[in-house]
Amino acid sequence: MALIVQKYGGTSVGNIERIKNVARRVARTYNEGNQVVVVLSAMSGETNRLVGLCNEASEFPIGREYDVVISTGEQVTIGLLSIVLKEMGHKAKSFMGHQVPVVTDSQFGSARIESIDPKRMRDELDRGVIVVVAGFQGIDPEGNITTLGRGGSDTTAVALAAALKADLCEIYTDVDGVYTTDPNICHEARKLKKVSYDEMLEMASLGAKVLQTRSVEFAKKYEVPVMVRSSFNDAEGTLVCKEDREMEKVVVSGITYNKNEAKISVLRVPDRPGIAAKLFRPLTESGMNIDMIVQNISHDAHTDLTFTVSKEDFKRALKLVQETAGQIEARDVIGDPNIAKVSIVGAGMRSHAGVASRMFEVMSKEGINIQMISTSEIKISIVIDVKYTELAVRVLHEAFGLGKGEIMEEAQA
Amino acid sequence: MALIVQKYGGTSVGNIERIKNVARRVARTYNEGNQVVVVLSAMSGETNRLVGLCNEASEFPIGREYDVVISTGEQVTIGLLSIVLKEMGHKAKSFMGHQVPVVTDSQFGSARIESIDPKRMRDELDRGVIVVVAGFQGIDPEGNITTLGRGGSDTTAVALAAALKADLCEIYTDVDGVYTTDPNICHEARKLKKVSYDEMLEMASLGAKVLQTRSVEFAKKYEVPVMVRSSFNDAEGTLVCKEDREMEKVVVSGITYNKNEAKISVLRVPDRPGIAAKLFRPLTESGMNIDMIVQNISHDAHTDLTFTVSKEDFKRALKLVQETAGQIEARDVIGDPNIAKVSIVGAGMRSHAGVASRMFEVMSKEGINIQMISTSEIKISIVIDVKYTELAVRVLHEAFGLGKGEIMEEAQA
Repeated sequence: MALIVQKYGGTSVGNIERIKNVARRVARTYNEGNQVVVVLSAMSGETNRLVGLCNEASEFPIGREYDVVISTGEQVTIGLLSIVLKEMGHKAKSFMGHQVPVVTDSQFGSARIESIDPKRMRDELDRGVIVVVAGFQGIDPEGNITTLGRGGSDTTAVALAAALKADLCEIYTDVDGVYTTDPNICHEARKLKKVSYDEMLEMASLGAKVLQTRSVEFAKKYEVPVMVRSSFNDAEGTLVCKEDREMEKVVVSGITYNKNEAKISVLRVPDRPGIAAKLFRPLTESGMNIDMIVQNISHDAHTDLTFTVSKEDFKRALKLVQETAGQIEARDVIGDPNIAKVSIVGAGMRSHAGVASRMFEVMSKEGINIQMISTSEIKISIVIDVKYTELAVRVLHEAFGLGKGEIMEEAQA
Repeated sequence: MALIVQKYGGTSVGNIERIKNVARRVARTYNEGNQVVVVLSAMSGETNRLVGLCNEASEFPIGREYDVVISTGEQVTIGLLSIVLKEMGHKAKSFMGHQVPVVTDSQFGSARIESIDPKRMRDELDRGVIVVVAGFQGIDPEGNITTLGRGGSDTTAVALAAALKADLCEIYTDVDGVYTTDPNICHEARKLKKVSYDEMLEMASLGAKVLQTRSVEFAKKYEVPVMVRSSFNDAEGTLVCKEDREMEKVVVSGITYNKNEAKISVLRVPDRPGIAAKLFRPLTESGMNIDMIVQNISHDAHTDLTFTVSKEDFKRALKLVQETAGQIEARDVIGDPNIAKVSIVGAGMRSHAGVASRMFEVMSKEGINIQMISTSEIKISIVIDVKYTELAVRVLHEAFGLGKGEIMEEAQA
């Protein structure tokens, strides 16, 4: 008998028919002799509706009361699924964050889980009850309702699996796994059987919107095996797990891209200590995330500095940088929103040299100019003109042999 | 400094504009130097939407999980009002039933309040906080969410006022008080300044849908003064309170009517012990409420038995009675859905004779046949043909002098 945590996202519980579908899947897992804990999101669209009400009520609604309002969506779905499971003859019981309890800090709107007491859930599981838990929500030490931020239900599921020492955490979503790249722009894309936590982290934060980044960090920390799969079919999903020998042999696991960034270059900056700090402080203080930063060696005690921000922050960032540029006597500031970041990710890169140069050769052969380069242990990102995005993804996918291999047929599923 | 509990119904919090209106009213009461506890219903329509989802999920959804779902409506409104009050610069804090806590029994869907701990609310009030509590919901001793049944927010408000020993409980609704009769069918109707708990109980259960019956019982038990008023204007409302001398002088306080009942007569029933029980048992076992029952003296060891049920139960009741009638050898069963119950209510009836005969005279003068009669200490109800309802109400209203008097001008407000 295994203990399995299953998480279903908003599309999977979008109406009663779909909730009944989820119930059948849960019941099947239970009938196969497993203990089952189910974590649910709100019906798709519901959290947006609630956030809309809060924004109508106040310009800055975030705080204790905001979380009171937006945590109701998950409460509705756990109640409804439990009703359906009971109708089917099962023992089922819903738990809100405060009933588990899932204890978080008091950072309303983006709280972090501090501890989970598995005792009540264990008692119910031992009695044959299917435990249905509201994702996304918790309670702080003072008894206030908190929420974990967008996509927080993934984190709830992984955290519950860790607390319960579950055998597996299944994340049901509207895609049936993690692909070598976006199947919409590359028909050769195939589903990965396995991917390591580190690779998944790079892929999640680079734009493959399958799992919330924090949930993968959590899974890595507590070594929770996570299976990503679809609630609409029975295709085998992708297992996110600890790196193993098999994975090391694969040099590149996937190609990701992100068209949601813009580039800002500050030209002929005097190369003095503290200049970069001066340039970036106003941006970070305004809550912007700076992604890639590139600075070349200096000439005549001057250098060029280039970085990327998200497209929605672009205009605001450009204005702030132009103000600072005057103070630090830079010659000019140039902004370019028409860029894309393309990355190759793979645990095998650690032990394989030449991946970067292969990437650059491929780009060069296609006449694609590389504007920026940034690397980590298991990924290489380049910034290129946005119009070459799809072409770059396809040729890299081919160049690193991602379309071939024994599990290729799964992409047809 | 007074402590005031204010309850706002679903129409009063139906959208953000109206919630802002409620916030202004709450703030005004607070700024006048009072401590304020606010109790809210769900946005109008929201509870129906949630009940609809539950009914889609199961044929018999009532139970623990049903309450989890339908209690979310109030959680949304208390969060939104608190956000608006904070935006206005006030200290405000929302409390769900389990946070107060409002402890109830475990009768899901229609739980009864067992105890309320006022300590947390008092602490917040003493700190200058406006306390905003979700109506309709509680928690049972095992920590399960419960709801109090339709209109339960009135009961929450009165119960909180009792627990806090509040000076006043204001119930804001879409009418501005309790009238001598329905102003829609009798233009002479005037608003009552005061009405006793007992009179209000008779009026509430007889069809004047201003306050939930249980909330009035609660108010009576703990002697909580309740003011019924409108959230859409500043008209003075109606005070529901202990009977006083002034009230005793008024013989009849109001005329109510109910078109939602139907009549069933069982003819020539053998007059033997146990027959009535045999007749009614199948009805009560099916969850039907039997209202008026009339049985005349018997002739030749046979009698006629007539009673009323709600219109929605009529067909089902008729079928059940026809089945039993055969077994007990009654001659015939006749059903009539075209009836109305008209009642006169007044605390003064206790000490005044002749009220009933005056009522019957008035009906006779208008040629209205009385089909059934039922009386209590402070009310007389008659059943008549439904087509005479409005006429009966108007002539009784006039006959008992309800359209006249010193506070007549208030009816214009």
